[in-house]
Amino acid sequence: MLSEQLSEYSRLTERKLSELIDEASCAPILNRSMLYSVFSGGKRVRPALCIASCELCGGIAEDALLAACAVELIHTYSLIHDDLPAMDNDDMRRGKPSSHKAFGEANAILAGDGLQALAFLALAKYDCKDALEYISRGALQMVIGQSLDVNAEGGVDLLEALQDYKTGALFRAAVLSGAACAHANAAQREALIRFANAYGMLFQITDDILDSTGDAVLLGKTVGKDAAEGKLTFVTAYGVESAKTHAQSYAKIALDAVKTVNTDAAFFTELIQYTLARKS
Amino acid sequence: MLSEQLSEYSRLTERKLSELIDEASCAPILNRSMLYSVFSGGKRVRPALCIASCELCGGIAEDALLAACAVELIHTYSLIHDDLPAMDNDDMRRGKPSSHKAFGEANAILAGDGLQALAFLALAKYDCKDALEYISRGALQMVIGQSLDVNAEGGVDLLEALQDYKTGALFRAAVLSGAACAHANAAQREALIRFANAYGMLFQITDDILDSTGDAVLLGKTVGKDAAEGKLTFVTAYGVESAKTHAQSYAKIALDAVKTVNTDAAFFTELIQYTLARKS
Repeated sequence: MLSEQLSEYSRLTERKLSELIDEASCAPILNRSMLYSVFSGGKRVRPALCIASCELCGGIAEDALLAACAVELIHTYSLIHDDLPAMDNDDMRRGKPSSHKAFGEANAILAGDGLQALAFLALAKYDCKDALEYISRGALQMVIGQSLDVNAEGGVDLLEALQDYKTGALFRAAVLSGAACAHANAAQREALIRFANAYGMLFQITDDILDSTGDAVLLGKTVGKDAAEGKLTFVTAYGVESAKTHAQSYAKIALDAVKTVNTDAAFFTELIQYTLARKS
Repeated sequence: MLSEQLSEYSRLTERKLSELIDEASCAPILNRSMLYSVFSGGKRVRPALCIASCELCGGIAEDALLAACAVELIHTYSLIHDDLPAMDNDDMRRGKPSSHKAFGEANAILAGDGLQALAFLALAKYDCKDALEYISRGALQMVIGQSLDVNAEGGVDLLEALQDYKTGALFRAAVLSGAACAHANAAQREALIRFANAYGMLFQITDDILDSTGDAVLLGKTVGKDAAEGKLTFVTAYGVESAKTHAQSYAKIALDAVKTVNTDAAFFTELIQYTLARKS
């Protein structure tokens, strides 16, 4: 079952995340602001994909834990900085005040900066040069995507490329670093890249659909913001129905890709179905 | 001569920094904002210390270049974020508008985030797990120091500890990562830690003295800000004369430490003298 598997991956990841955040225990407010955002009810999809990719390629969960934490720490820092007044200016995140609302702007900037540093300190505890390369590249590409978005440097024709940077890059980092922890071969890595690219698009499109039609209570954040701000998304560009069709076809590509790595890909299959139908 | 040596280290570092920043060339504004801050006339003290430490321990400059760049990229990102309105709110940096004045706040946040990611991508190009550990730890400790400072969690009794995190941590990262690139032994590493701790204090104290008595034109930034804002520094806590005495004694500790590694430590000796007498 997907939910049990996700819970198990979460449990492993969260135990390690707690240990890692202890590295900042000598700065009480930094420590609290890190814990606040890292433990705020996220679904841990990225670390789960990292661990599941390691297992899919014949490794064991334990080997991928530090990479999984690194990816989750980078994801969390990006949410904190995205919410800042100068960026998306979001007061709520996962049903709670966003970091700058809870701790002030300076502390939110520092929490994000510190979480990014901590992600790489986690990777220093594990000897896998490839994981470092995948995750640092993912972290940079995510910022590249944000920059293209913030400065509206991408038109409709660049929407997929932009979202690939913003969302796809960290999914790629998750699956590739997980695979690297299992010493995956080139064919496995290529199939996982195809999976991550398609899954990233699926994830972003369903995110855009939720922003347009979702339930604010379930989501724990404001809905309809994209359209109100004239933001370019898959929904504002193509409409909800066409976005749903796109999501379906990316789901199929993702599924086909992952099955070439290992026919026993139940976790991935269920995650794709879940994402396609997600309500939050 | 110190200036020639610094120029040579700078030349090597800057060539590599340019190559690295090309990784963000697909996002024009991010790319420009990174170049703007990375090439803004910094003295490159940290990368010089990284390379010089590698040489001091018997290595060659080339081996330490990526670590040197990583340290400089982290230093640069920290300056961009420190200048933000929510942090120190500085409009000028090295005689030019600070990043958020030149590119806007969102782009300044992203430039900093991207430079930190790039620092670790640089380290992924070079196989030295120890360098990753030293530099990621330095990056985290720097944020810890900033957090203690911003939240005034340290009193006068904690001033040295706070400055050790804020300034010393990245100097330690520089010399230790450089030493790691030369496969330094434990005695060499310990001596370099003693050097970096003392040099960091020397650097911070002279910085505080300049803020209180320096020339705004030479410094390229506002002076007297610390006292005006009631900020705790070595000068506001102990007065200029006592701060100068402290600086002298840290200079001696730094010098003694580095000479135990290698009696031919001309670069370090001159750098310490230069820092003690610095005007900018």
